[in-house]
Amino acid sequence: MKAFSRTKVGVLGGGQLGRMLIQSGINFDIQFKMLDSDAQAPCAQIAQEFVHGSLMDFKTVVKFGQELDVLTIEIEKVNADALEELEKQGKKVFPQSHIIRMIQDKRLQKQFYKDNKIPTSDFVLIDSLKELDNYSNWLPAVQKLGRDGYDGRGVQMMRTPSDFKKGFEEPSLLEKMVEMEKEIAIIVSRNEAGEIKTFPAVELVYHPEHNLVDYLISPADIPAEIEQKAKEITIDLVEKLSFVGILAVELFWAKSGEILVNEIAPRPHNSGHQTIEGNYTSQYEQHLRAILNLPLGNTEIRQVSAMINILGEEGYTGKAKYVGMDEILKMEGVYPHLYGKEITKPFRKMGHVTILGKNREDVSQKIEHIRNNLKVISQ
Amino acid sequence: MKAFSRTKVGVLGGGQLGRMLIQSGINFDIQFKMLDSDAQAPCAQIAQEFVHGSLMDFKTVVKFGQELDVLTIEIEKVNADALEELEKQGKKVFPQSHIIRMIQDKRLQKQFYKDNKIPTSDFVLIDSLKELDNYSNWLPAVQKLGRDGYDGRGVQMMRTPSDFKKGFEEPSLLEKMVEMEKEIAIIVSRNEAGEIKTFPAVELVYHPEHNLVDYLISPADIPAEIEQKAKEITIDLVEKLSFVGILAVELFWAKSGEILVNEIAPRPHNSGHQTIEGNYTSQYEQHLRAILNLPLGNTEIRQVSAMINILGEEGYTGKAKYVGMDEILKMEGVYPHLYGKEITKPFRKMGHVTILGKNREDVSQKIEHIRNNLKVISQ
Repeated sequence: MKAFSRTKVGVLGGGQLGRMLIQSGINFDIQFKMLDSDAQAPCAQIAQEFVHGSLMDFKTVVKFGQELDVLTIEIEKVNADALEELEKQGKKVFPQSHIIRMIQDKRLQKQFYKDNKIPTSDFVLIDSLKELDNYSNWLPAVQKLGRDGYDGRGVQMMRTPSDFKKGFEEPSLLEKMVEMEKEIAIIVSRNEAGEIKTFPAVELVYHPEHNLVDYLISPADIPAEIEQKAKEITIDLVEKLSFVGILAVELFWAKSGEILVNEIAPRPHNSGHQTIEGNYTSQYEQHLRAILNLPLGNTEIRQVSAMINILGEEGYTGKAKYVGMDEILKMEGVYPHLYGKEITKPFRKMGHVTILGKNREDVSQKIEHIRNNLKVISQ
Repeated sequence: MKAFSRTKVGVLGGGQLGRMLIQSGINFDIQFKMLDSDAQAPCAQIAQEFVHGSLMDFKTVVKFGQELDVLTIEIEKVNADALEELEKQGKKVFPQSHIIRMIQDKRLQKQFYKDNKIPTSDFVLIDSLKELDNYSNWLPAVQKLGRDGYDGRGVQMMRTPSDFKKGFEEPSLLEKMVEMEKEIAIIVSRNEAGEIKTFPAVELVYHPEHNLVDYLISPADIPAEIEQKAKEITIDLVEKLSFVGILAVELFWAKSGEILVNEIAPRPHNSGHQTIEGNYTSQYEQHLRAILNLPLGNTEIRQVSAMINILGEEGYTGKAKYVGMDEILKMEGVYPHLYGKEITKPFRKMGHVTILGKNREDVSQKIEHIRNNLKVISQ
């Protein structure tokens, strides 16, 4: 690896995660080449090289993967066969193609946990809508599409059998609802040499309506032994996968006391944005360190932090206009990150705000103030 | 100002300061258009738009300044007449052209201090080499070129009359040497609305040989009343100038107890790099806030920090290779920033490292370790 001599990193996907990866990689003089099917993607203007093309097209991805030092992803929905072909050609692809393929399908993900004794909620595979009827006595549960779900799309609550009519036709899985104490996330990284580091657990709070992370707080307010147990699970996971890169692990701390893996994402993740200001090393730099086989950075918390998404306001579609930003910028320890998306749509992730504070209460008050003041509408 | 709706900022200069400005501006979705005479300048690849051309050419600069929301600089050596012409056309130019013109000439700078009762060391204007002979009894002193000095070039110590033969022919000034307690720097910013904020003072330590800042420590270890006095001077300065943007003020704390302004730079500055990790708001974001007339950010220190330049090793010219970086990345609270310069030369500023620490001693030890391990040589 010729790190620090203009290392060339290829990234499948050119969205906001890629954008923050580029922003971080400037410090290491990394040359980014990004691929995205949207010519106006958040990375389009700031990448050293930007290729407009389909992440799902075998030939496009194989061609894109030539003459790079390492290839990585910022979205899972990519052509895994193409990545496997690149690996066969001797290219470095991190995370590895077989892991991406497994994570692309939530059914395979769940099967992996089961086969490898990674604690997770009970589940059954569902191949057709009518099979759901066999599980009337197994509710409440969550039906999830096997493939192509993303950010709340492809997830359906099944509280009573009458909800079955809202179910998915495509191959899916039905997960028994977990009575949760809290939902947490831990980001774990592993480099090629096998060094592993976990970030401290964060706590996720979902918006009841549109099923996106509403805000998160770092550190999670959980007992030390719960955090310890959760960290051991994430370390076990990356070791069993021989994973290289950064893995975001969403976990349930169940009322039963169990820690259960919910879902994983093999890339920088929404639950790690606040590391940019809140921790010594950001998830973006850590991902770069991991895939370039550099020593992993210190993941400790510098300060209590929180993160809220900036979502497009309902009822507005068009060129984005940020209302109330001046009010936000008057606040101390408040960091807007806009994703460079020209067009806003209802609930579109347009950016996020990181909040630093003295303590949890301080941070919560700031969140309230931001929520009451900041709106993304159209011009 | 249409801030937060893809504000377009033009920058004269495309060096490392511009690079870190872009890196910061990504958070605000600012569109940068940069002008530099070097097609391989640090900003060339990451700017949304990069124009290759001379900063000193009137027509080039006037043409560059069209269709921007605001025009700023990251280097003083620009065509000030062109900026004045743009102001006449009604464009926003911050800092303002007449301030840039004054700062370009150290003789005018000194005269400004004198005329405006800003404390500074005694000086005389020197128009030809032979005039120096009149000041044999006025030594030790420093001769400085009026124009075009930069980073140690254009500065000559005059300890005894025998040093006069090393003097400059061009218009210069001779400054009486100040017996210093410490050299400090304060970065002050002012937005168009007149809001002013100062960063806490940092302490500069120069390398005895190549006359560049060797390292700096934040906060400066100086009495509170000295810092207060220094801050008042910097505030007085930006108010008297009606300055808009960020102004780096280098000051001497003299053994006499006086605080004297040494030099000023109307842009982000070497003495503010450590604000990226060490303070709540970085100097780069603060500059953007100031020129976009946004509320200024909190300048408080988050943690003790230090900054050392990464200079090209003596005896090596060619494609840069960073030796020992792995060792540096193992350290906690250590942040390399490479400037994206392909070619190293002796003493060329290739990057810097910010160091966070528990206290001053901790930080000093880390600096020692970095200095012993990190080298920039050629491949």
